[in-house]
Order: sequence, then C-alpha cells, then structure tokens
Amino acid sequence: MEKLQLLFDGNEKQVYATDEKDRVIFHYKDVATAYGGIKRATFRRKGVLTCGISSILFRYLNENGIKTHFIESLNDREQVCRPITIIPLNVAVRNYAAGTMARRLGIEPGTKLSHTVIELFYNNDDLRDPMINADHAIALGIVNAEEIALIREEALKANELIVKLMEGLGIRVVDLKLEFGRASDGTIIMSDEISPDTCRFWDMKTGEVLDKDRFRHDMGGVIDAYEYVYTLLNRM
Amino acid sequence: MEKLQLLFDGNEKQVYATDEKDRVIFHYKDVATAYGGIKRATFRRKGVLTCGISSILFRYLNENGIKTHFIESLNDREQVCRPITIIPLNVAVRNYAAGTMARRLGIEPGTKLSHTVIELFYNNDDLRDPMINADHAIALGIVNAEEIALIREEALKANELIVKLMEGLGIRVVDLKLEFGRASDGTIIMSDEISPDTCRFWDMKTGEVLDKDRFRHDMGGVIDAYEYVYTLLNRM
Repeated sequence: MEKLQLLFDGNEKQVYATDEKDRVIFHYKDVATAYGGIKRATFRRKGVLTCGISSILFRYLNENGIKTHFIESLNDREQVCRPITIIPLNVAVRNYAAGTMARRLGIEPGTKLSHTVIELFYNNDDLRDPMINADHAIALGIVNAEEIALIREEALKANELIVKLMEGLGIRVVDLKLEFGRASDGTIIMSDEISPDTCRFWDMKTGEVLDKDRFRHDMGGVIDAYEYVYTLLNRM
Repeated sequence: MEKLQLLFDGNEKQVYATDEKDRVIFHYKDVATAYGGIKRATFRRKGVLTCGISSILFRYLNENGIKTHFIESLNDREQVCRPITIIPLNVAVRNYAAGTMARRLGIEPGTKLSHTVIELFYNNDDLRDPMINADHAIALGIVNAEEIALIREEALKANELIVKLMEGLGIRVVDLKLEFGRASDGTIIMSDEISPDTCRFWDMKTGEVLDKDRFRHDMGGVIDAYEYVYTLLNRM
C-alpha cells in the first residue's frame, strides 16, 4: 500500500489517501490542542502514545462487535483505516460528572451518575460546537431518527466495553468522546480516535488524572500519564 | 369553594389553596417578566388575557385526551386547577426556528423545521435554567425513562392539537413552552399556562409577532397582540 496525498490536516491528526480502494492512513502528530484550538503545545512522543492507545481500543471494539474505521496499525504513529464521510457530531458518553457537564448541572465533579448520559455536540467551528439533542441533529439534517438511535446504541455498547477493559486495569472511565461517519457502503461506523486526548481517565485508587485535562489545566505530566495508560493497555 | 392561603407567589401568577380536596386556584397577574425576571413591567388587563387564552387552550387539550391540571374557569383572571408537585423541566416544542435555538444552531429565524424539535431546560435559577437532554433529566433524578417518554409524547400531541387549532385561526405556532407536574395520584399532567407569554405565535399572513417577544424586544403593542389572540380564540 502506497501513501498518497494529504486529504485532511487536523490539529492532532492527518489523513492521507492511499493507492488502495477504501483505505486511508491516519497519522498522529505530537501536537496537543484544547479550547477549540486556542491552547496549543507540542509534546514529544504524544502521537505515538495516542496512536498506540487508540489502536488497541479500536481493535478491542472491532473484536467485540462494534463497527469502527480501524483496520490495522501501520507503524507507531500511523493506522490504516476505512475512509468515512464525517458526521459532524461529537458524542460524549458520561459515567461520572466532570468538566462542562458538572458545571452546567451543578453536580460535584467525580460524582457517579445514576444513569449513563449521552451528550451530542454539533461539530461546527462558527457556532462553537454547541450542545444539541437528537431532535436538533435530525432537524439539522445531520442524521435521521434510525441513525441517531444506532449511534446512541453503539456509543453505549462501546462505553460498556471500554469501562470493563479499563476498570480491569485500575482506570476509571469518567467519560468518552466518540465520533461516527458513513463508510463508502453507507454504513455508520465509529471513527476518529479513542485516547486520553478524547476521554477522561482517572486512576481508580489515587484519583490521579490520566488524560488531556492535565494539559487543559496546566497540571504537568501529560506524557507520563499517557505513557502509563499505554503501558497498561500494551501489557494485556 | 373557598379561596384560602397563598401557596406560591410567582412573577406572573399566584397559586392559592382552597377548602376543597385536590383543588387550587391559579390567579393571573398583570405583570410581565423576561430574561429570568431581569426585565419586568405591568400591563393592565394582561392577566385577564393570559388567563382567558390559557383556559381556552387547556380546555381544548382536556377535551382532546391530554391530561392537564385545568379544571374550570373561576372568573376572568382565576382558574380552578389540580394541585401538582412541580417537575422542574421547561419543555419547549419547536415547529419553526426562533430565539435561542435559531442562534444556537445558526438557522434563520422563521425557518420551518423539517422535524419537530423538543428541548428540555432544567428549571433551576442558580444554574440559569440550562438546556439539558433526557439523559441529564434522568441522571438528575427529575424523571425516570418512562416519565420522560410520556412527557415527550404528550408534548408532541399537544403541539399537534394546538397547531391545528391556531392555524385554523390564521396563527402560526412557532414554539410552545410546556410544563408538567405530578398530580396527587402520581399521574404526570400538564400544568402552568399556555398563552402568548409562554409560546411564540405569529400572524400567518403578515408575520406579525403576537407574543411575549413584543415585550422582550420592546416592540410595543403587547396587549393589542394578546387581545387579538384572545378575541380569535373566544369567537370559536
């Protein structure tokens, strides 16, 4: 497989075309961004860690019946994936209150939610990614009713699987951010990445933050935390 | 039936106890408020108009299979209602984009939505009534899954009925704000009021605004607009 032209140059990732039908290459950069790209830094080895973690988690989801874009690892910062047409939704799955949700609802961060919460955000820079609900997503023409029901179901299943895996490693899954897209055959599949860049992971014993909040809130030790998560997942 | 002590003194309405079991009296004031009570004014006759419109609409919903708190009109600014325990949700049903939703989603105000949108707001002054979704409402312990499904179904049915009625009078129902509560037997019933204070009504021919936006945006003619809606409903 030959790597061809750059199709998409994102903050943290690039997507390249290939000479094979229905194959693209995801390349993970060493860049970290937060607050819609306002905060930005480079961390050596970050791309290797997010690529590694994401590959392990997508492989695990694939093996457990979730349809994802991930096909295989290519090297330590590249993955072979199915190309998708992006569905402009960020799907957050929340097991514990944290971040914007804790503030919005006046719930103490770290509180276990009695009911798993799915939040939808409309991925739109001009509107600053507003929180929406399923009706909005349908009215906006982003998805139809069956599609949003499927996305919801897949997000809940993936969350359950990842919680099971991570808790076995002593890591609490506070929340996950998932994205979905339409594959060439029209199927909706999970895409983007699943890593400490897109999830909140806390050490179950110490409560230590093991995710991008370390970067957001200038806590330091970003790479050490990601390395810890990667080492645990890699050892399985 | 004897009117007893004041149970609740709201911005626009008061609720009184009575000497009859399972009966309270709703009293409509001449006060208008907007932006969470920051903007406030008195309009002579407003309470008569909102009470009158609300009574006609609740009676119509009752007759068409929607369970509401409304029992009967008592006088021109009072209604006999079933007491409820408030469910702290504002349920907006939107047929056309307007107000906060149009801004949030970048949709031109007045655009017909391809799919009726229900929005939920957590009625909480300290948190400034944040928009939430059904999962949040369940996680907050406000409602369970069956209850929120019922509320959604009743809201959509009520919207369909009110649209049918108002369009027959040449009035476009842009959106409705509904509230629900638990009656003494635990049943969830529609409560509060349904009037130009809580809905957006536009003249279908001229596009003229016939609701509280006239007050919100200092357009003048608040009482004339409410009087127009009341006269049309009363003439049926």
